[in-house]
Amino acid sequence: MSTLLATRMRGLRASEIREILKLTRRPEVISFAGGLPASELFPVERMMTISSEVLAREGRQVLQYSPTEGDASLREAIAARMARRFGVHLGPDEILVTSGSQQGLDLTGKLLLDEGDAVLCESPTYLGAIQAFEAYRPRFRDVPTDDEGMVLSALERRLSDQPAAKLVYVVPDFQNPSGRCWSLERRVALLRLAGRFGVTVVEDCPYGELRFRGPELPALKSLDREGLVVYLGTFSKVLCPGLRVGWLAASRALLEKYVLAKQGADLHTSSLTQRLIAAYLQRFDLDEDIRRIREVYRQRCDVMLRTMDEEFPPGIRYTRPDGGLFLWVELPETLNARDLLVKCLARDVAFVPGGSFFPNGGHENTLRLNFSAMPPERIREGVRRLSEVLRETLGRPAGRPLREALAPTA
Amino acid sequence: MSTLLATRMRGLRASEIREILKLTRRPEVISFAGGLPASELFPVERMMTISSEVLAREGRQVLQYSPTEGDASLREAIAARMARRFGVHLGPDEILVTSGSQQGLDLTGKLLLDEGDAVLCESPTYLGAIQAFEAYRPRFRDVPTDDEGMVLSALERRLSDQPAAKLVYVVPDFQNPSGRCWSLERRVALLRLAGRFGVTVVEDCPYGELRFRGPELPALKSLDREGLVVYLGTFSKVLCPGLRVGWLAASRALLEKYVLAKQGADLHTSSLTQRLIAAYLQRFDLDEDIRRIREVYRQRCDVMLRTMDEEFPPGIRYTRPDGGLFLWVELPETLNARDLLVKCLARDVAFVPGGSFFPNGGHENTLRLNFSAMPPERIREGVRRLSEVLRETLGRPAGRPLREALAPTA
Repeated sequence: MSTLLATRMRGLRASEIREILKLTRRPEVISFAGGLPASELFPVERMMTISSEVLAREGRQVLQYSPTEGDASLREAIAARMARRFGVHLGPDEILVTSGSQQGLDLTGKLLLDEGDAVLCESPTYLGAIQAFEAYRPRFRDVPTDDEGMVLSALERRLSDQPAAKLVYVVPDFQNPSGRCWSLERRVALLRLAGRFGVTVVEDCPYGELRFRGPELPALKSLDREGLVVYLGTFSKVLCPGLRVGWLAASRALLEKYVLAKQGADLHTSSLTQRLIAAYLQRFDLDEDIRRIREVYRQRCDVMLRTMDEEFPPGIRYTRPDGGLFLWVELPETLNARDLLVKCLARDVAFVPGGSFFPNGGHENTLRLNFSAMPPERIREGVRRLSEVLRETLGRPAGRPLREALAPTA
Repeated sequence: MSTLLATRMRGLRASEIREILKLTRRPEVISFAGGLPASELFPVERMMTISSEVLAREGRQVLQYSPTEGDASLREAIAARMARRFGVHLGPDEILVTSGSQQGLDLTGKLLLDEGDAVLCESPTYLGAIQAFEAYRPRFRDVPTDDEGMVLSALERRLSDQPAAKLVYVVPDFQNPSGRCWSLERRVALLRLAGRFGVTVVEDCPYGELRFRGPELPALKSLDREGLVVYLGTFSKVLCPGLRVGWLAASRALLEKYVLAKQGADLHTSSLTQRLIAAYLQRFDLDEDIRRIREVYRQRCDVMLRTMDEEFPPGIRYTRPDGGLFLWVELPETLNARDLLVKCLARDVAFVPGGSFFPNGGHENTLRLNFSAMPPERIREGVRRLSEVLRETLGRPAGRPLREALAPTA
């Protein structure tokens, strides 16, 4: 079997998240392991209305093949929304509809990465990006990252390394897995450095609209004067993920190449699901939906943090996100989160060990917690169970944890 | 720009079909260039019923993330249908739901092809497969092909070449672009040779159920005793393409790897569109739909052939398909189909020049005609216009063309 596979695929192993999720399907498990949006907020009835309307009005078209670039009205709606919400001014021909933003990552790897090319990423970084890029065999160079983003001196050093970096991959808003958000200063500085070194920046932005505290910060793409930023967006976290509709914004010349790469990958994204999203945007107020989602996630995040503050033993650090779906925990270095997970599963509580989010390994004392997918009482109960295991493992009673900002990692 | 791209993508050019389709969007053009199924046969009202039911019954689930492998009930339904219709007996865990069978091609390239690996294919072969595989930089070795399939002596010679072939890609039933169907003898012989040389066979089967004449022939997968065949199926041609739902059947060990490759590519196919197909299969008789589609395509194919027989000048050869969507034309070697297309577009009729279907070029005197996408009177009118251009170009009157089987190509 293994000799049959292409070299790029020989090291392929099932992802940890995936294997863990299998163990957590038992309904009694309180799982902080997934990254699911709250399904009770999905607009099911509106989708019923819209799907009937769309099929009645244009049934033959939405069941037929459609252009690789994406539905024209959806591309226009996305361009209009990016201008209004993020101050990113693009033509519809700078937008490609993708089958979720995961496809944007895969197409980026396919289009830009030769074997051995250097990809700079945050530390930790999004596991799905590691998976997507890995198929094209780059070298990942993780850049030390603190609560404001990549540490600039370290980024500059990495950019000066030879061979030159091919791209910088970042999730500036409420990152998966850390929940961190880049400061304005770091955003501006990243673009300045990218311009100086002529490197492409991939801005993966699934959570940018899910800020529940503090002032909004500009998308990198809105600061991009030189066309260096490829922006990945998605409706998965603000509407629903099951339709698999995302988008990618890039300069016209690069977008044309993305279109060709997508044509070889899946011809086009479902005509029906694209039209459902376009009709939804036209008919309903997505901003209003997002306000509701933010409020629910804020409550859930606060409950999680409050319970952690009360129940965790001392010596454990964690982020305090202002948005998104996740927070990040650093245990004392003597602890291994994989071992901890085994103990936790015995008490029917789950999370994702953080080691998977570092492409070059290490950091086994970290873990990711999701707070979006369950009601407050389940969150409280789950964090209590996790705290019990932590206290037993560390032999320490509950106490106020260290509250300082997390030290840079990498 | 071009130095930014990965080496694999530097030669990427817009496909000819794609550029031509842009020219043929004017409604007055009679286009035989596309490969669209007849949209007037799409079960629009049934889809309305089903989408309402599915969203009412399981709205939260179909709008949520779902497993990469595909919806469990759809995988079971596909396995059951493959057993009943094609005599292929597989478990649901040998089936991966894909975002159309184009994704099956892309994942196959990603999983199996190292740069320089030899891919054996028919001559001509499906353009979309060339596009999908090309991103992984194999060498295409086209094998001379006649009306019964690959010429076995040539295939055996190719298989003996060094380096060893990594896979054999075939469309045994009503191939795109030629409309040809492999004989039973060649099918059996291909598998025997594949076994002897230990090479993977990719059986791309979008048109297998669209036979409108003659006895059915077994799928290669049904003859596969050694687990060498990867089967690609799709609902695009028997139900509708706009939902982008296909599947891939392979041995369990290989399928696990495909699942990992798909996870990196798009996480999963739309939960909603998968459930729509599953519900359709449960609730309605797809075989009955297919009988109707076959009858319509048979009429359209017959009208096209009859008009060609009557109107074409002598010296032009063409296939007489027993199913599928396409037929294939060989002009006298002095003619170039790209030049002919320019003349035809001036008379508002279009086709795809055949050169694109040969990965190593040549064969500029060939072209592909689609007969599924328009009513008989438009087909007649379009073939008349094409015939006029041919007669003028060749300086010959209408006459009975040569009817012999096409000579092997390659």
